[in-house]
This record gives sequence, structure tokens and C-alpha cells, in this order.
Amino acid sequence: MSNPSLLILPGDGIGPEVMAEVRKVIDWYGAKRDLAFDVSEDLVGGAAYDAHGTPLHDDTMAKAQEVDAVLLGAVGGPKYDVLDFSVKPERGLLRLRKEMDLYANLRPAQCFDALADFSSLKKDVVAGLDIMIVRELTSGIYFGEPRGIIEEGNERVGINTQRYTESEIDRVARSAFELAMKRDKKLCSMEKANVMESGVLWREVVTEVGKDYPEVELSHMYADAGAMQLCRWPKQFDVIVTDNLFGDLLSDAAAMLTGSLGMLPSASLGAPMANGRPKALYEPVHGSAPDIAGQGKANPIACILSFAMALRYSFDLGDEATRLEQAVEKVLADGARTADLLGEEGVDPVSTSQMGDAIVAAL
Amino acid sequence: MSNPSLLILPGDGIGPEVMAEVRKVIDWYGAKRDLAFDVSEDLVGGAAYDAHGTPLHDDTMAKAQEVDAVLLGAVGGPKYDVLDFSVKPERGLLRLRKEMDLYANLRPAQCFDALADFSSLKKDVVAGLDIMIVRELTSGIYFGEPRGIIEEGNERVGINTQRYTESEIDRVARSAFELAMKRDKKLCSMEKANVMESGVLWREVVTEVGKDYPEVELSHMYADAGAMQLCRWPKQFDVIVTDNLFGDLLSDAAAMLTGSLGMLPSASLGAPMANGRPKALYEPVHGSAPDIAGQGKANPIACILSFAMALRYSFDLGDEATRLEQAVEKVLADGARTADLLGEEGVDPVSTSQMGDAIVAAL
Ligand SMILES: CC(C)[C@H](C(=O)O)[C@@H](O)C(=O)O
Ligand SMILES: CC(C)[C@H](C(=O)O)[C@@H](O)C(=O)O
Repeated sequence: MSNPSLLILPGDGIGPEVMAEVRKVIDWYGAKRDLAFDVSEDLVGGAAYDAHGTPLHDDTMAKAQEVDAVLLGAVGGPKYDVLDFSVKPERGLLRLRKEMDLYANLRPAQCFDALADFSSLKKDVVAGLDIMIVRELTSGIYFGEPRGIIEEGNERVGINTQRYTESEIDRVARSAFELAMKRDKKLCSMEKANVMESGVLWREVVTEVGKDYPEVELSHMYADAGAMQLCRWPKQFDVIVTDNLFGDLLSDAAAMLTGSLGMLPSASLGAPMANGRPKALYEPVHGSAPDIAGQGKANPIACILSFAMALRYSFDLGDEATRLEQAVEKVLADGARTADLLGEEGVDPVSTSQMGDAIVAAL
Repeated sequence: MSNPSLLILPGDGIGPEVMAEVRKVIDWYGAKRDLAFDVSEDLVGGAAYDAHGTPLHDDTMAKAQEVDAVLLGAVGGPKYDVLDFSVKPERGLLRLRKEMDLYANLRPAQCFDALADFSSLKKDVVAGLDIMIVRELTSGIYFGEPRGIIEEGNERVGINTQRYTESEIDRVARSAFELAMKRDKKLCSMEKANVMESGVLWREVVTEVGKDYPEVELSHMYADAGAMQLCRWPKQFDVIVTDNLFGDLLSDAAAMLTGSLGMLPSASLGAPMANGRPKALYEPVHGSAPDIAGQGKANPIACILSFAMALRYSFDLGDEATRLEQAVEKVLADGARTADLLGEEGVDPVSTSQMGDAIVAAL
């Protein structure tokens, strides 16, 4: 049997730096655990635009469709703000999500014990927090047609369309229920069914799917109330399922609450391929952070933990994923801190690569 | 000259209770400050549906168009969850906003000194917080067509349309810049211009309007980053301007951060009427709280402060508004707490009407 294949797309800003640390981890698994991966690397985002005039080359797209898993760093940067909408760095990422049909975006919002003080929230509100947001990722207002800026009368009108089919809602709801079954069996679905018909359908379909998961306690919340409750007492939640746009805001808010933005990974999963593995892309929740790019200040942990998610969700290596997560926890408990995690008196920051080395050493 | 006119729409849940306290305040202004208002009262939301089979009777709509200002309590409740989308309580409120063309929704997120401990955020993050979110209220995905649930192939599809014209963006941006001029001259506009064309147009138009306000420091942020930054360090903001849907989530999150949800008022303003006063509706940010309705537990302050906003924005009585706001602060400083504000040891809650009485006494 050939080795599992990985396509690495470091992207822009701090993407390449944090990805370099992931490669150390991948190499460690090859050398020490006899888990060799066939790794290839390519461009996405601004980096791809600079090279090819497009944020995702067709060849790269084709490769992404063939590998077992894609690891992505981050895309975007002020340099590309002037670009036309159609070639912005983000379009590369969105094309990957759409064409790979990665409909279930798993975003754990977890507060690391060693870092609970970093949150802007009170310690008792976030300590031990461990929730999972499942965001629909291939539909909704991100992709709905018609869209664009049109002329109407004497003025321009900006248009986007929120659009959800029953089957789109059904499949992401099932992913969320499956996750809930493996966790605390509690699922909260968020929409604006009081204002949007797409939310009405969302609520109906999720409720219907819930009948197949009688053990899971299902609740519904309007997304604005959800934003509030996440800020007030996030521990009331276990798994949250929501649409693409609400998921964008709510998962970012939840990530920030943990105080550990540089720590949070994500997995974007699609349907099973011929080999049984799901189509999959893994990326940190943080962005490309152009302000600190190239300075060795970035925290590689979110990207490394994204690889841990790959071990768990693509390769069914839950034990190896846990090993990596525990290595990260150990390094943090030992006091290693990248610049984003400073705050305690008298602690000097470690560099991006020192953090990567420490994690490999702890493995 | 005839007295200024007020239409009171208590609505559902705790709406009637908190509005009863506002009436005490209105009466005080009539008796003690020679500011008599012509007050009429009518139904909205579930209460209107129960009486008329519609969440807003045409006669009520007509009255709302004629008065100088509308004061609304809250709408909605589980009893009405089964109703068809078209007659849900919320539709009454949305019809008022739309037909009165109340495009600028002003939502102060302010942390009251006496209550800083109530926030789930650390005290230094929220103490002294005073930001103003200006939310577009009459357009966007709340009202865009086409909308609905349609059949397509073998399944149903939920559709909503985000739609913004240049002039819709222009006018709410102007409201926000005007407010910024009276405050710290800092405006942050939030959208998803990296993903949505309506956001691209939003950013362009706001930037253009900004040229008329060279003194205001304008910045732009993606709404997901905005949600994060609000949770991380809300004091970085002064005025925020954003669309209807983002504004719904972001202003609720911001409100919750202050820890004083029961304290926060809002004003929804439209174009000037013949008498120079803007079309206006004032309502608390909190909802109808059906779980505590009718028990004397509700906090009337948000609704009373909404009346203060009416004094300021509809009747140009800024000094009288400040008087009322100071009365509220005094009562809080003296230790009066409704049930939602409990937490300190050994403090007994005051009832809704005791809180109203205390504020009148402090006036
Ligand atoms: C980069 C951007 C297109 C993206 C999104 O809006 O989905 C990002 O914010 C995310 O959440 O992954
Ligand atoms: C009640 C509901 C229709 C409303 C909205 O979504 O605008 C509420 O959440 C608000 O923010 O005023």
C-alpha cells in the first residue's frame, strides 16, 4: 500500500513559517512512528496570484482533489487588497472548499488550561471550555447566485444570495449529530428563523435529522442570541451547528473567547472518497497575520493541531492525534510561549521554530 | 403648539411591565418639568396577533407614522413559535422599521460602573466601555427579494437575498459619521468584502462618504474579525457601522459584553418629518423574556433609557435625557438591583415597579 498523501499549501503571511513547523512534526511521525506521508507542496492565495495571476492554479486544484488531505496555512494580506474581487487570495481558499465539497467545517473552541488567563473573559467562564462548532462551508451566502454589483436606475446595487437546499442542511446536520454522539450528546442549532426563510428551512431539516439521533438533546437558538450566549456562558454548549456566514462570525468569536487564537485548528470535511477517507482540508483558525510575518513570532500550534485533526479525521489515527495534542499541552505546561501568548512577568518568548522544536522533542 | 405625541407599543412578555415604569417617568416629566406628551397605546407582536390575527394592525401602523416617536417594549414568545412566518410577532416590528423607513439603528453598548462586575469579561476589559453600534435597519437580507422556501427538483430550497443600494449605504454611513463627529471621531465599518460583493460596495460607499468627514478616522474590518475584536478588546472602538444582519449579531454580542443587557436602550431613526423631527422608534435591546414575564422581575432600565434616547434624538432635549440617565446611575450607585443584576452577597432584588419608583424618586 502506498503512503497516505498530503498536499501542503502554506499560502501567505505567516502561513509558510507555521507550516515549516508542521513539516518537522510530519517528519517525526515518519521517522519515529513509521507513518510516512507523501508530501507535496504548492501555492495558494496571494502567493499563487503572484506566481500565476490566480489565487489557485487549476493544477493545484486538481492535486487537491487527488490527495488524502490538504493542509493549508493562511491566505490574504494588505498587498492584495487592491485586487479585483475575483482574484483575491480568499477566492483560492473558497474554491478549494467548494470544489472539494467540504461541507462540514469543524472548529473546536477549546481553552487550554495553561492559557486560561489569556482570555478577555473571566477565568471561571472559560477554564475547561471545550465546544465544537460545525459550520456549513460550501453553500449559503458565500456561494449563492445571483451575486455581484449591478446597475439599477442611477445607482449600483450589491447583491448576494443566501440559499440552502434541504440536502445541504441535512448532510451538515448529520455531521454535527455524529460528533455530538461522540461528545456530550448536546447539539444547539443556530439560525435566524424569525427573520429568514432559509433559517426556517434550516430549523425544520435539523429537527427532522434529529429524529435519527434520539439520544442527542437538540436545541435551537437565534444566531444573535447565540452570539450573546457564547459571550455570557460558553460552557452551556457542547456542539453547535450553523450556516456558513453565521458560522464565520460565531466560530471566530468563540475562538477569541478561549484566549488562544493562535492555538485553534480546524478541519473541513466532505464526502468519503473511494478509499473511504473523507475529502479533507485542515487549516488554523487564525489568519495570515501579515504584520508579524517573517519575524519568527508566529505561533505554529494552531497549524500543528490542524495536523493532529488530520491524523484523527483523515487517517483514523486518534491515538496519534492525542499523542500530538498532549505534546502541545506538555510544552505549554512547561512554560514555552510564543509572542502572542506573553503576558506573564519575566517570561521570554520562544520563536516559531523553537516552539516547533519543543513540540517535536515532547513527542 | 400641541404636545409632542408618543405611541406606546408594550408588546409581549415583559414588554407591558417595563413599559408601565416608563409611563411613570413620562408622567414625572409632565408634572415636574412641564413636558407633557400626548400618549396613546396600542398592540404589537403576539399581543396584536391575539387580538387581530396580525402582528401589526394597519391602524396601528398608520398611528405610528403620525406620532413624533414610538416606544416599543418587546415582541415574541414560545406561544407564537407555531405561527406561520408571515404572522410571527417579529413581523410586526419589522413592518414598523420598514414602513417608517428607520434606517439607522443606534445601539449604545455601555458598561455601567456599578455593574462592571456582571460582565463575563474581565473588569479592565469592560469598565468604562462606551461604544455606539450603528446598524442599518431597513434593508439587507432582512428585506431583500426574492425570498421564501421554494420547490426545486425533489427538494425544498430556502432563499434570502442580501441587497444594498448605494443610497441605502450612503445614508446610514452619514448617520454614523455624524455620530462619530459628536463622539471620539473614530468610525469602524464592518462587512465581509472579502467574500460578498454587497460588502465590496458597502466598503466603497462608506469610504466615499468618509471624504465628507475628513476629521473622522475611518477603518474597515471584516465582520468575523470584528466579532473577535469586540470580544478581545472592545474599547478599541468608538462608533461601528454595519449592515442589518451583522449588526444584529455584533450589537447583541457587544451588549452582552457590557454585562448589562437589561440596561441597554436603542433608537431607530429615519428621515426628518415635516416638523423636523426624525421618524423614530425606541426600544430596549433585550427581548420579551417570556420566562420571567408577569413576575415583577424584569429590569425596566433599558426601556426607561430608551425613553431618554427619545428625549435626546426626537425632542432635542439632551439635558433632560442626561438628567434621566443620571437618575438611573444614581439608583444603581445606591445599590438598587433587579433580579437580573444580582450576584453580590446579601443584596435583595427590587421589583420592576420598585426600580421604576426609585428612578422617579431620583429624578
Ligand atoms: C478567509 C475567509 C474567506 C474565511 C471565511 O470567511 O470563511 C475565513 O474568515 C474563515 O473563517 O475561514
Ligand atoms: C426580534 C428580531 C426580529 C430583531 C432582529 O432580528 O432585528 C431583534 O433581534 C433585534 O435585534 O432587534
